[in-house]
Amino acid sequence: MKKYLVGVDIGGTNMRVSIASQEKIIIKVVQKTKLEGDEHTVPNQVVSLIDIACQRAEVQKEEILALGVGTIGPFKKRNGFLYVVTANICGALAKERDVIPNNWKEIPLQKDLSEHYGNLRFDNDCVAAVNAERIFGAGQHKDNFVYVTISTGVGGGIVQDGKIIRGKNANAGHIGHIYIAEDGPQCGCGNYGDFEVLCSGLAIARDYGSKTAEEAFVAYRNKEDKAIKVIQRAARNIGRGLASVNAILDTELFIIGGGVFMNNKDILLPLIKEEFYRSFPTLSEEVEIIPSPLEDYLGDIGAFSLVIPKDWIEHWKNIKPWTTAPKPIKLN
Amino acid sequence: MKKYLVGVDIGGTNMRVSIASQEKIIIKVVQKTKLEGDEHTVPNQVVSLIDIACQRAEVQKEEILALGVGTIGPFKKRNGFLYVVTANICGALAKERDVIPNNWKEIPLQKDLSEHYGNLRFDNDCVAAVNAERIFGAGQHKDNFVYVTISTGVGGGIVQDGKIIRGKNANAGHIGHIYIAEDGPQCGCGNYGDFEVLCSGLAIARDYGSKTAEEAFVAYRNKEDKAIKVIQRAARNIGRGLASVNAILDTELFIIGGGVFMNNKDILLPLIKEEFYRSFPTLSEEVEIIPSPLEDYLGDIGAFSLVIPKDWIEHWKNIKPWTTAPKPIKLN
Repeated sequence: MKKYLVGVDIGGTNMRVSIASQEKIIIKVVQKTKLEGDEHTVPNQVVSLIDIACQRAEVQKEEILALGVGTIGPFKKRNGFLYVVTANICGALAKERDVIPNNWKEIPLQKDLSEHYGNLRFDNDCVAAVNAERIFGAGQHKDNFVYVTISTGVGGGIVQDGKIIRGKNANAGHIGHIYIAEDGPQCGCGNYGDFEVLCSGLAIARDYGSKTAEEAFVAYRNKEDKAIKVIQRAARNIGRGLASVNAILDTELFIIGGGVFMNNKDILLPLIKEEFYRSFPTLSEEVEIIPSPLEDYLGDIGAFSLVIPKDWIEHWKNIKPWTTAPKPIKLN
Repeated sequence: MKKYLVGVDIGGTNMRVSIASQEKIIIKVVQKTKLEGDEHTVPNQVVSLIDIACQRAEVQKEEILALGVGTIGPFKKRNGFLYVVTANICGALAKERDVIPNNWKEIPLQKDLSEHYGNLRFDNDCVAAVNAERIFGAGQHKDNFVYVTISTGVGGGIVQDGKIIRGKNANAGHIGHIYIAEDGPQCGCGNYGDFEVLCSGLAIARDYGSKTAEEAFVAYRNKEDKAIKVIQRAARNIGRGLASVNAILDTELFIIGGGVFMNNKDILLPLIKEEFYRSFPTLSEEVEIIPSPLEDYLGDIGAFSLVIPKDWIEHWKNIKPWTTAPKPIKLN
């Protein structure tokens, strides 16, 4: 009997697989994303990681109801399948790396996985996240909201007029690549002065001159001038980026997550709001901006939410299986 | 028998009313938008303009099938009705005017009109325009496209995943108010450095130092350095603005209209494209950018398209009644 959901969360650094029954998340495994080999390396790794998780949890492949995949993007469509364009998966700033360990241009992720799993739903990780917020989080009962991650990079997923929007290649929500400044540093995507290159964790570290954004936030808390300047500018530009997204969408709510934001929301949220509400009042004044209530769990729930059967939803709202999930098993 | 459609196009300068039968547009009247009086002035003017058009065309009110209204925005929602917030309707840069001839904050346009007309559809003028492009223009058979006007101001309307998107107050598509530069002149909306304040006709005239944008384009054609610099910067920022919209929506097609663009598309279109395709290639390379094929008629067809009965559409595609419409009658 088909009774398990598989959730897959594919990032440029790590890949995570979780399996859930209607009652609980029964296993989580995590492995570094493999970047060497041919263009089937990543899909093959997903398949083998699912196999390992199934074995350890004593789940038969025939018992898998559906597979939800939230993955790093962006995508191109080829013969109806979404291929992952690999700039991000090999490090957003690939050109600054000494070596890219492969010659991938596009990974046939959806195509390869659909050969193994019939019931497959495949989306950008931030689209999976906004879907989780829609079903289980801050987006319940809202028709218009945007999930935004401020992390190593900047990304987003959009619910508009009651539906997730996707666009021609399922790339809607790539808010990290809207322009914010007329000039500015070059983003991994090629743009100069976009949201990501001005506001991401990498950007804050670069502007402060540290290895991680966290060092800049520590210095900010110690009232160090340079850190204050760098973080105020980043936060101001986040506020302006959200105002641009809102001018296009007329949304109700921004739900912000991502490690850089969540670890420093006491600093960032007031600064972001200050700038956001300074923009065109008629458009901005009815919009809410809040931290994601589900952030720590979005990798899991995002992927599961793409395939969860309708009759599981109310039960999951009650038992919140993500809060009782086992610790992830790290695989080499 | 109900057999006429009324189309109303409300701008900050002029108001236009057209009446159409299934076979043709039978009358068009135009009048300067009245800005003095109480907040019912504009809706009252619409009602009286429709009455005049009906009298002249010998149409009885009972014969009106439906009323489509495309109006300047933005909107606020009050008790389910859209009110027009009046910054734009009194001149986008109201603060620079010597006198604002009224104390309106919000015009109860939809509410007042719905008291006179049962079958009323009400939308932003650029939303009406994108709807016309969807039914009769370049958006036919496309699921994702954006209509953009580059005129005195900058505005837009969006079809996404097969549907017009509206947002919480039907303000989706206000692309003129996305940020393009970290600093810059102040827009009528309050923003510094947004799309409209950097790229509109008013912006080009301001930067060139002329009364109208047209003078700058004439000078550009005469290879005058300052005009070249001003227009290249505006065009570059239009390209960047479109790239931002596309990063959020993953669209297929931009349909550009508006007087400033249409009169100078030989200059602007190549410059806009050059900049647009420089942005994140994975997102930009499959997008088309074209001039609106319907531009001269969008005021009419936009409003009609909001209420056209399904069984008229094929016929109108054949007879293109907008091409044989009578000249507008100017009223004082």
